[in-house]
Amino acid sequence: MKIGFIGTGIMGRPMAGHLQAAGHELFLLQHRSPLPEELVSGGAIACKSAREVAERAEVVILMLPDTPDVEKVLFAEEGVAQGLQRGAAVLDMSSISPTATADFAKRILAQGGEYLDAPVSGGEVGAKNQTLTIMCGGARATFDRLLPLLELMGKNITLVGEQNGDGQTCKVANQIVVALTIEAVGEALVFASKAGADPAKVREALMGGFAGSKILEIHGERMIKRTFDPGFRIGLHQKDLNLALQSARELGVALPNTGTAQALFSACVAQGGFDWDHSAMVKALELMAQHPVKE
Amino acid sequence: MKIGFIGTGIMGRPMAGHLQAAGHELFLLQHRSPLPEELVSGGAIACKSAREVAERAEVVILMLPDTPDVEKVLFAEEGVAQGLQRGAAVLDMSSISPTATADFAKRILAQGGEYLDAPVSGGEVGAKNQTLTIMCGGARATFDRLLPLLELMGKNITLVGEQNGDGQTCKVANQIVVALTIEAVGEALVFASKAGADPAKVREALMGGFAGSKILEIHGERMIKRTFDPGFRIGLHQKDLNLALQSARELGVALPNTGTAQALFSACVAQGGFDWDHSAMVKALELMAQHPVKE
Repeated sequence: MKIGFIGTGIMGRPMAGHLQAAGHELFLLQHRSPLPEELVSGGAIACKSAREVAERAEVVILMLPDTPDVEKVLFAEEGVAQGLQRGAAVLDMSSISPTATADFAKRILAQGGEYLDAPVSGGEVGAKNQTLTIMCGGARATFDRLLPLLELMGKNITLVGEQNGDGQTCKVANQIVVALTIEAVGEALVFASKAGADPAKVREALMGGFAGSKILEIHGERMIKRTFDPGFRIGLHQKDLNLALQSARELGVALPNTGTAQALFSACVAQGGFDWDHSAMVKALELMAQHPVKE
Repeated sequence: MKIGFIGTGIMGRPMAGHLQAAGHELFLLQHRSPLPEELVSGGAIACKSAREVAERAEVVILMLPDTPDVEKVLFAEEGVAQGLQRGAAVLDMSSISPTATADFAKRILAQGGEYLDAPVSGGEVGAKNQTLTIMCGGARATFDRLLPLLELMGKNITLVGEQNGDGQTCKVANQIVVALTIEAVGEALVFASKAGADPAKVREALMGGFAGSKILEIHGERMIKRTFDPGFRIGLHQKDLNLALQSARELGVALPNTGTAQALFSACVAQGGFDWDHSAMVKALELMAQHPVKE
């Protein structure tokens, strides 16, 4: 299949590679920085504009940092919308605003294109190992048509709903739960440690019971062993919580603890922690308590 | 063994029953309300005061509602402390303040007694089925001595630390994690639902990934299926978060999301929800969003 792929960064580069390895023809957007060599030497074609990518492809995949980047690539002068063929599909795998996604999709559908939002979780490791979790929103026919491509990039693939934006909504919900569970484990361990108990023992005692979670297991251990190299960077999780809080405002939903978690991430960034693993959120709680979980 | 058991309510009654069934001799405190028949007909002896219970027992087990109840039974006129034999042990299985526990234990130890704090989780079902999780704080020798009794009441039994109060600290940490994870799942599902996604699909998509937890599984389902009969009552969880917040103030620890969770429980109580299951915390978030997770 002729596939446009815009956004061949840390995540997009290995994802595009898997598509090429499976025999698909890639059309990439030529930026100032050079395109990944292995894709070019594998036969990927460089295009001068997003419009040209769209003109030559049956599916245009986007893997971009944030909502404004997607908007620009789709709808700016010489953008995807100007070149997209009738019946061709936009497959947006970026993590961006659910409400903006609904708008973008409406405009693409109105001009005869198809649209699937399909943000991922699993990070660089998941992108390299074809094990990304992919959360999709859009028409079932579009999902079915694009599923063979998605299966080259991930494995836990869900059509969350047939409304565009449902995939992004699910991704936001995921990032809320992850951030707030990290925060929960952080409050519990700082409390226990300052009360004089051994946080490692407390983590163990809690793990078998109702408080058990992957985050208590993995990030609880990080907090105790002080291993805060990423992993998933605080700066990226802040972007995701920003999507949550911004969408929540638009929708009229109160997310009090998401707001607090974002504030704690900011306190980490103020300590130089933009690139710390998100489990380092505990450091903001430790700062307030003037007490580390573990020396 | 001669065992005093003070607090034969919903939890204590079946716990005392298991001890009696294993051949231990029970000494109970006669209140205005009659003692459980099956214990009396099984040979339990009614005593006129906590002091008399202590005079006749090698171990005095407490299973009382809150910190002031334990303080009164131990140290008021005609209390346990006045009758406790040298070398006899107080085994406090109530969920009470960690800092007050350290003080109570110090006073009992000073008069030649032993002390183990051993709060439980697992509720009425765990008490009946001898499957309580028991989190202990105190000297290892005391723990070892009392372990055969604890094994008649629970199965996941941990000596969290050798400092009295460590068991209570661990229980508080557990209740923080549980409350805040419920809150996290609540924020995510209210957000997703108001954004138009199917919360059941979102829960499914999240379950295999990093956001997965027992609470997403069990309480997430309760929020979607609207089954808020307890389970674990909001009124009881409020008591536990009160212990957390009060101890946190004494220790100098900031627990911002625990504070919010307590406020959300209060909003539920204002709606008549003292006896709702704690997963109904989501109703406070729904109220603010003017939108139920599921109609």
